[in-house]
Amino acid sequence: MESSPKDLNHVGIVGLGLIGGSLGLDLQSLGCRVYGLTHRESTAQRAKERGLAQVASTDPNILLNCSVVILALPLSQLVKPSKELINILPANAIITDVGSVKAPITKVWNKIHPLFVPSHPMAGTSNAGIEAGERNLFKNRPWVTTPSKETNQTALSTIHELAHLLGSQLVSVDAEMHDQAVALISHLPIFISAALLKTVGEGQPPSLLELAKTVASSGFADTTRIGAGNPNLGVDLAKYNHEALVQALSSYCLSIRELKSLIENNQWDQLQSTLKESKLSRSDFLE
Amino acid sequence: MESSPKDLNHVGIVGLGLIGGSLGLDLQSLGCRVYGLTHRESTAQRAKERGLAQVASTDPNILLNCSVVILALPLSQLVKPSKELINILPANAIITDVGSVKAPITKVWNKIHPLFVPSHPMAGTSNAGIEAGERNLFKNRPWVTTPSKETNQTALSTIHELAHLLGSQLVSVDAEMHDQAVALISHLPIFISAALLKTVGEGQPPSLLELAKTVASSGFADTTRIGAGNPNLGVDLAKYNHEALVQALSSYCLSIRELKSLIENNQWDQLQSTLKESKLSRSDFLE
Repeated sequence: MESSPKDLNHVGIVGLGLIGGSLGLDLQSLGCRVYGLTHRESTAQRAKERGLAQVASTDPNILLNCSVVILALPLSQLVKPSKELINILPANAIITDVGSVKAPITKVWNKIHPLFVPSHPMAGTSNAGIEAGERNLFKNRPWVTTPSKETNQTALSTIHELAHLLGSQLVSVDAEMHDQAVALISHLPIFISAALLKTVGEGQPPSLLELAKTVASSGFADTTRIGAGNPNLGVDLAKYNHEALVQALSSYCLSIRELKSLIENNQWDQLQSTLKESKLSRSDFLE
Repeated sequence: MESSPKDLNHVGIVGLGLIGGSLGLDLQSLGCRVYGLTHRESTAQRAKERGLAQVASTDPNILLNCSVVILALPLSQLVKPSKELINILPANAIITDVGSVKAPITKVWNKIHPLFVPSHPMAGTSNAGIEAGERNLFKNRPWVTTPSKETNQTALSTIHELAHLLGSQLVSVDAEMHDQAVALISHLPIFISAALLKTVGEGQPPSLLELAKTVASSGFADTTRIGAGNPNLGVDLAKYNHEALVQALSSYCLSIRELKSLIENNQWDQLQSTLKESKLSRSDFLE
């Protein structure tokens, strides 16, 4: 066991799902003592069995001696935190979160706690819940912080150190920029993909639908994967990254209408250029 | 080596790319003697080295004794076949193709050859060209034939036997139905995905684009994969499956506008139902 940096000796994690549970596993191997707060007794029990935290409990008092508390909760609970959650956080602890939309969380939490640092560790699998946490989830993945002028610099350094120790690639940008980028790259694809599922699932004659099912292949599977995720998460992203997502959807509607128009009007040379540019754009993005 | 059925003793394949080359490999292991016709001398040479056919040549005369000839050519060369191609086909051989749009090919080839059977083996990888052919590509994949009233029944049986021997799941439907199904399930996703790449690649501020590149993850990779395929294939599909694709794009534009409107108008309950239905629809499709 390595010796953990002073500020990270006692780390609290609120919520032990995929992100919280994975953090618990990794932080323990870094030598931190991890205190996991769960909503239900049964989850605390299972967290102990899985070794997600040295201490796992539904009792908020376990957080009292923590120098850092990570809020690994669903987006809605971060944007609209309960009084109960606010009251259990030690006044002198550094607080960070893992929410995937940053502007509304930053705005709310800057008023709640002077040592709040907005974070978005960008890692995940398709699993969720108490069984989902796994080691090394954050390794080589972006960990975005979105400090504002209210953010305490020492607290920010501690969270940057935490991200660094977990093997993440640290990115620090303003919250609006973060939200626009994830709207384009993470949230827009969910709705594009869901709209494809809606198109094939609705209003098609049954015989056509049967044939379509028989011939659906990897291209269809890939393009629809992200559209079939957790509906609650989809709604929360739409709700809390509203402006950036609506703007991304507007740009997308223009793009798809432009492609449709090229096809309708038999503009094959222009269609080919567009498809060539798309191909280049992807290799540029995922190089 | 198994003994091949009589009609499949001598099989010609025109074009030894992914589909033609894979057919060559599998048919040889079934005991067929395979004659591969290529456009270029260098490709014929490489086909011999890779063992894609016992005989590989640019000389059309190699097809003279074939009882079955498979046209494994790009869509455009199937819809608008050259005089040269038409002239090299033996009058008494059964002819089939591998084109991914069936109505226009069936229409054209029914007039060219009395023993033409329209086929679409629905298998593929992201590879193309003489190096792409691989064994067992068609195993457990759909092989669609689209016989019309002009289709010779004996010829059709032979092609069904061929598909069966290759381990494919045989599906027989009319050409228009096939084209509508693949428009929805295979061709529409290409343009949906390309439109996403167009949206992120165009008109975004450079700093946002840089951040988006840093945080792009597996969801973005999955949703854009099929949009970054061969631009020529995309154009050919749009050209030759025009009506069905335009109709699929129109339905899709309605779906995405509907989702956008739910989001713009904060209709969260309806958005959640829609996302739930999409999730169900996908498991129904890919069960």
